[in-house]
Amino acid sequence: MAERITPRQENYSDWYVDVVLNAELADYSPVKGTMVIRPRGYALWERMQRALDDMFKETGHVNAYFPLLIPESFIHREAEHVEGFAPELAVVTHGGGEELDEPLVIRPTSETIIWSMYKKWIQSYRDLPLLINQWANVLRWEKRTRLFLRTMEFLWQEGHTAHATAEEAQEETLKILEVYRRFAEEWMAVPVLTGVKTEQEKFAGAVNTYAIEAMVQDKRALQAGTSHFLGQNFAKAFDVTYQTQTGELEYVWATSWGVSTRLIGALIMAHSDDSGLVVPPRLAPIETVIIPIFKNKNKDEVIAYARGIHEKLRAEFRTELDADDTASPGYKFSQWELFGVPIRIECGPRDMENNKAVLVRRDTGEKTPVPIDGIADAVRNLLADIQSNLFERARAFREENTREFDGNYEEFCEFLNSTSGFAVAPWSGTKETELKVKADTKATIRVLRFGNEEEAAGKKCIVSGEPAKHVAVFARAY
Amino acid sequence: MAERITPRQENYSDWYVDVVLNAELADYSPVKGTMVIRPRGYALWERMQRALDDMFKETGHVNAYFPLLIPESFIHREAEHVEGFAPELAVVTHGGGEELDEPLVIRPTSETIIWSMYKKWIQSYRDLPLLINQWANVLRWEKRTRLFLRTMEFLWQEGHTAHATAEEAQEETLKILEVYRRFAEEWMAVPVLTGVKTEQEKFAGAVNTYAIEAMVQDKRALQAGTSHFLGQNFAKAFDVTYQTQTGELEYVWATSWGVSTRLIGALIMAHSDDSGLVVPPRLAPIETVIIPIFKNKNKDEVIAYARGIHEKLRAEFRTELDADDTASPGYKFSQWELFGVPIRIECGPRDMENNKAVLVRRDTGEKTPVPIDGIADAVRNLLADIQSNLFERARAFREENTREFDGNYEEFCEFLNSTSGFAVAPWSGTKETELKVKADTKATIRVLRFGNEEEAAGKKCIVSGEPAKHVAVFARAY
Repeated sequence: MAERITPRQENYSDWYVDVVLNAELADYSPVKGTMVIRPRGYALWERMQRALDDMFKETGHVNAYFPLLIPESFIHREAEHVEGFAPELAVVTHGGGEELDEPLVIRPTSETIIWSMYKKWIQSYRDLPLLINQWANVLRWEKRTRLFLRTMEFLWQEGHTAHATAEEAQEETLKILEVYRRFAEEWMAVPVLTGVKTEQEKFAGAVNTYAIEAMVQDKRALQAGTSHFLGQNFAKAFDVTYQTQTGELEYVWATSWGVSTRLIGALIMAHSDDSGLVVPPRLAPIETVIIPIFKNKNKDEVIAYARGIHEKLRAEFRTELDADDTASPGYKFSQWELFGVPIRIECGPRDMENNKAVLVRRDTGEKTPVPIDGIADAVRNLLADIQSNLFERARAFREENTREFDGNYEEFCEFLNSTSGFAVAPWSGTKETELKVKADTKATIRVLRFGNEEEAAGKKCIVSGEPAKHVAVFARAY
Repeated sequence: MAERITPRQENYSDWYVDVVLNAELADYSPVKGTMVIRPRGYALWERMQRALDDMFKETGHVNAYFPLLIPESFIHREAEHVEGFAPELAVVTHGGGEELDEPLVIRPTSETIIWSMYKKWIQSYRDLPLLINQWANVLRWEKRTRLFLRTMEFLWQEGHTAHATAEEAQEETLKILEVYRRFAEEWMAVPVLTGVKTEQEKFAGAVNTYAIEAMVQDKRALQAGTSHFLGQNFAKAFDVTYQTQTGELEYVWATSWGVSTRLIGALIMAHSDDSGLVVPPRLAPIETVIIPIFKNKNKDEVIAYARGIHEKLRAEFRTELDADDTASPGYKFSQWELFGVPIRIECGPRDMENNKAVLVRRDTGEKTPVPIDGIADAVRNLLADIQSNLFERARAFREENTREFDGNYEEFCEFLNSTSGFAVAPWSGTKETELKVKADTKATIRVLRFGNEEEAAGKKCIVSGEPAKHVAVFARAY
């Protein structure tokens, strides 16, 4: 199967699609722009969900569920929101055989329907904060789609919180950004930059959008999660006020934040190789696969030996035994590499004699014979090692492919035009210069890192030569 | 708050809505016929999901996700399916600002989109069985809705399996029915009848529909889950064949099965009372709540004592401490009763002196003082006792309100017309007699229990006096 994967060097886009399809993560569906998440892909999503959900609950959030369909008029209540989302709406005009009085749209995001409910639920400061998350499907009519990274329908979580003060809402926005950063780095093994988006790149309806940005193997940026400080925009649009402790009426302050099945795309693009999927152990649905290597004459003994290893490991690790006798070991090796299982455990008659087995790590291909007695310890250590190796490898790659520019706009453009990575450069902060870079290079400002204003002191904008207000990270992005 | 609940005896429907709204399980949404599942309701659903998902996985199933939108023409491929679902469809006619060439419908159930994918994935007997489940939202345009029990949009799981033989598919259908029965009885503490539905009542597209049926407190039946043997109907509609071991092409055999957020409605209707929600401990998001009873002079000591109990219990039980000093103990008692927490733990200064606390069970109101030393054991035993008491109470109630009829159609109709419960009676098996009962009493056949044909031997149909083929369970239903 692995031979069906286009090498990355040949065509990165084809490589990506080949990995997704051949590792059976997803498939195209009969409805253009939508996808089917197959069991191996969904198992990854389930592990991501569980980890994120635990983190949300540890930080005081609860889950709820709001309707899929939203009255079209709701989208129009917040001026920037409608401008951002109106072109992407799917509209239900008929229901139960009749034309509807008011069309309903399928949620592209749920701020409007949720704030229409918050109006009912929030009266006093005692009702705040309200810290609600939803796991749901959303739909945005996209013209150009790509499996996991941009599909018309996708699965996500969207948090929507309501607060008494701007400070508290700001704090929540950043708390969630930190949850996302930790999830990306500690679970996905994907290093991310954090910071704020520019006016051009922020969420339609937000005061400020914060994001985590990853670099993938073709050196493009990939936005992996966003956390928005919404100010009082939605409270005003839906007239949600609360009575303060001193009796005044104030508009409520809001945040919203989300990550989606796009994370699966980020994961694939960050770690996988020409043999297929590579998954960090903490998220791997299967951590180890045991493959007995036998001939007909010793089949039963070797399989029994492999079964013994399976019994030793299964209580602690997500382990499979592949004892199928209709496929060759070589076929199985490449199959399980394709599926991204972090450790393959090989055992043949010689290993059996020596009371050993061979651990083969997916990330480097390195083989280590280990005694059966200590195999659980060896597996545990190796999984931890793979997890940190993937992270360090991705971090080193990002650092190698990040370049600082202090002047020389031409070189800066050349770097971006050849997609050589992240270009870090002083920037004046104006819309004109930002759009000029985009026109000249197709690159956008991915993030203004925390503290970048201080770095900018005394520097000149890479585009205009005016005094710089920021040091921005520019890159071509997915 | 509790005084806002209409007593069951006064108006059962109003009581139900009052419990749902006041226990903050759900709320009406701005889109007619849809609901918002609030955090306390969603927490129940999460516990249900987790338990069911574990049972599905133990029986070899995996999760996946298929698109929300289905080409309208797909629904028309299976003759009975379209007849059943066409009147309930929500139709998307516009997307991204343009009118669509072919309208898309929001899934009312996913057989058609899933079988269009199975055609791609199934070629040989090696690809079978395919045991896939999906957790998703679905939408059916309903005119008369009721919170949780019948809403336009609802959350559910839908299993869709593909098999090489009819026998294997039949076995799967019944295996899942048994999973549903165990979940209803062991987790929800709701006793259910199991069996097959009549032609009139089966799923549109099934050969046979099996169901679990509960009796709720107004003695109506409530269908809580269904498992369908679909024969080769969808395989033929989507041309899904497989090559057998001997090389022939055969159509694939199918099942589908589902339970939904309707289960939350069943749970409420089965156990709750005029003080609010009653939840079986295994599904309770909060198992125990500790309420310190203090005056100003001893507030700190009593709260510290309560906190000590919390520390003792929190590792093993889902426990809350309600130390709010702005509400009276009496107010808190009724609040937590309303929310359905199975055990309230009261502790005041006297309890503190004696190193005791008082356990108050939600199902009976019974109070038991227990020494702090053994409190974890006492809580564990009491939770188990509440779980089995709820089940036994519901079973006794159903038995008291089930009556067997051997003749006397008039009495039979009178019983059903006064909704006095389940009427078990011999039945000829004809559509005419089934419809006559419905016309005369609004009751339907809920289920033909396993082995009912043997029971029918020598008996006469309650309606027509013809020889009976079945013994059927008739009831008015939700």
